[in-house]
Amino acid sequence: MITSTSNPQIKRLLQLQKKAKARDEENVFVVEGLRMFAEVPKNRVEKVYISESLFNRKKLELNLQDFPYEILSEQVFGHVSDTKTPQGILCVVKREKYDLNELFKVENPHFIVLDNLQDPGNMGTIVRTAEAAGVDAVFMSKDCVDIYNPKTIRSTMGSIYRVPYIYIEDIPNLLDIFRKNGVKSYAAHLNGEKFYDQEDYSAGTAILIGNEGNGLREEVAKKADIWVKIPMQGQVESLNAAIAASVLMFEVFRQRR
Amino acid sequence: MITSTSNPQIKRLLQLQKKAKARDEENVFVVEGLRMFAEVPKNRVEKVYISESLFNRKKLELNLQDFPYEILSEQVFGHVSDTKTPQGILCVVKREKYDLNELFKVENPHFIVLDNLQDPGNMGTIVRTAEAAGVDAVFMSKDCVDIYNPKTIRSTMGSIYRVPYIYIEDIPNLLDIFRKNGVKSYAAHLNGEKFYDQEDYSAGTAILIGNEGNGLREEVAKKADIWVKIPMQGQVESLNAAIAASVLMFEVFRQRR
Repeated sequence: MITSTSNPQIKRLLQLQKKAKARDEENVFVVEGLRMFAEVPKNRVEKVYISESLFNRKKLELNLQDFPYEILSEQVFGHVSDTKTPQGILCVVKREKYDLNELFKVENPHFIVLDNLQDPGNMGTIVRTAEAAGVDAVFMSKDCVDIYNPKTIRSTMGSIYRVPYIYIEDIPNLLDIFRKNGVKSYAAHLNGEKFYDQEDYSAGTAILIGNEGNGLREEVAKKADIWVKIPMQGQVESLNAAIAASVLMFEVFRQRR
Repeated sequence: MITSTSNPQIKRLLQLQKKAKARDEENVFVVEGLRMFAEVPKNRVEKVYISESLFNRKKLELNLQDFPYEILSEQVFGHVSDTKTPQGILCVVKREKYDLNELFKVENPHFIVLDNLQDPGNMGTIVRTAEAAGVDAVFMSKDCVDIYNPKTIRSTMGSIYRVPYIYIEDIPNLLDIFRKNGVKSYAAHLNGEKFYDQEDYSAGTAILIGNEGNGLREEVAKKADIWVKIPMQGQVESLNAAIAASVLMFEVFRQRR
């Protein structure tokens, strides 16, 4: 059992929790909680860390014998946990690498593109909703929040394991690739000419969502095939980014059912 | 200028920020930031607190002469602010009281009912989205998170000033009142018999949304006229409560446009 916060494994875990760079270098991410552990693909588990009390209560039902694991004292677990009330289990997970070309092999794909999205909770909620709405892949600009941020991971509620996603250097160029592959791009835009439900999304569709405060960058918006608007009553200036994304993804899904 | 955190006004502000009970007793709430200040109805402002630096930079354009105000040193402002990077202005606002009977005077109203919703961010996002989707009032069970929680207020982005809302002791009884007033209630439910987009929402409509982890309480769900389901792909067990609410509110709004 690890009882000291100066143990090298604990120091590494803390780095992985706090720093995107440390996660990138090791090509892993950290998940926390019973549900995230239950849903993790077994072959991607690098190591499991469990608190002493959870180990004593649940070691059998968690099938820990299938994984390399380490027991941590409660105090040490609290130290490495990203949550206020830790469930007592966290897990270092190897990343899945998705290939851009593979993502186009779906017929009439349903994509979502996030341009400079900054809020970790929004990012996670969008990935979760994307899975529910049958989205085939999530594309993110390089300057989006890290999808492996602990709060993002938590907000995905496990969808991070199942929805393909990819960071893209040049989003305007991606929209050209979409066009060549028969995928129409729809910019969610306050100045959209059409309401979002006036378009037909039965062919290949990519929904473009911009930054929380500023919306889509001009160089991205101007490359989109169509600008669509979500109508709004009252004095609301814009919707939350995850809400706008969800309304659009569910309209695409609704039309396709 | 107030330069001490032991000043009685500062102690009171802290109580108002942190405790629902203190806010209830004084029948006020606290808003923070330039936008929330810009949109506050003037007749409801009880007092404005402004940091020294913001006062020096913007006293004229903020029209502070219209309100009772107090200048706080940066350190004291940081002490009472609920945000990590305070904008330097906060404001004690008198509450608006909405009357249940008045809320039924709208023809074919579009209502949303929140049953034991617990997350302050979800609550605020729902109020913001409700304004955008033309919702006429938000009904909340008494055990919902406090709508005057600082994080909720922030997430409403000003809609708190404009969307009527009311806490209700007995939600099952409310659904009876709905029925008598020609308002059909639709429970968002994983076991819904119908998909949400198969219903016609042109008559009076109330959407019922439950707790983040447990959904609607049985005694509420069983009183609803119809259970509707949002279809989900993949292995997603449920949507985030604010997302589910938004998909439904925007479907009602879409049909009514």
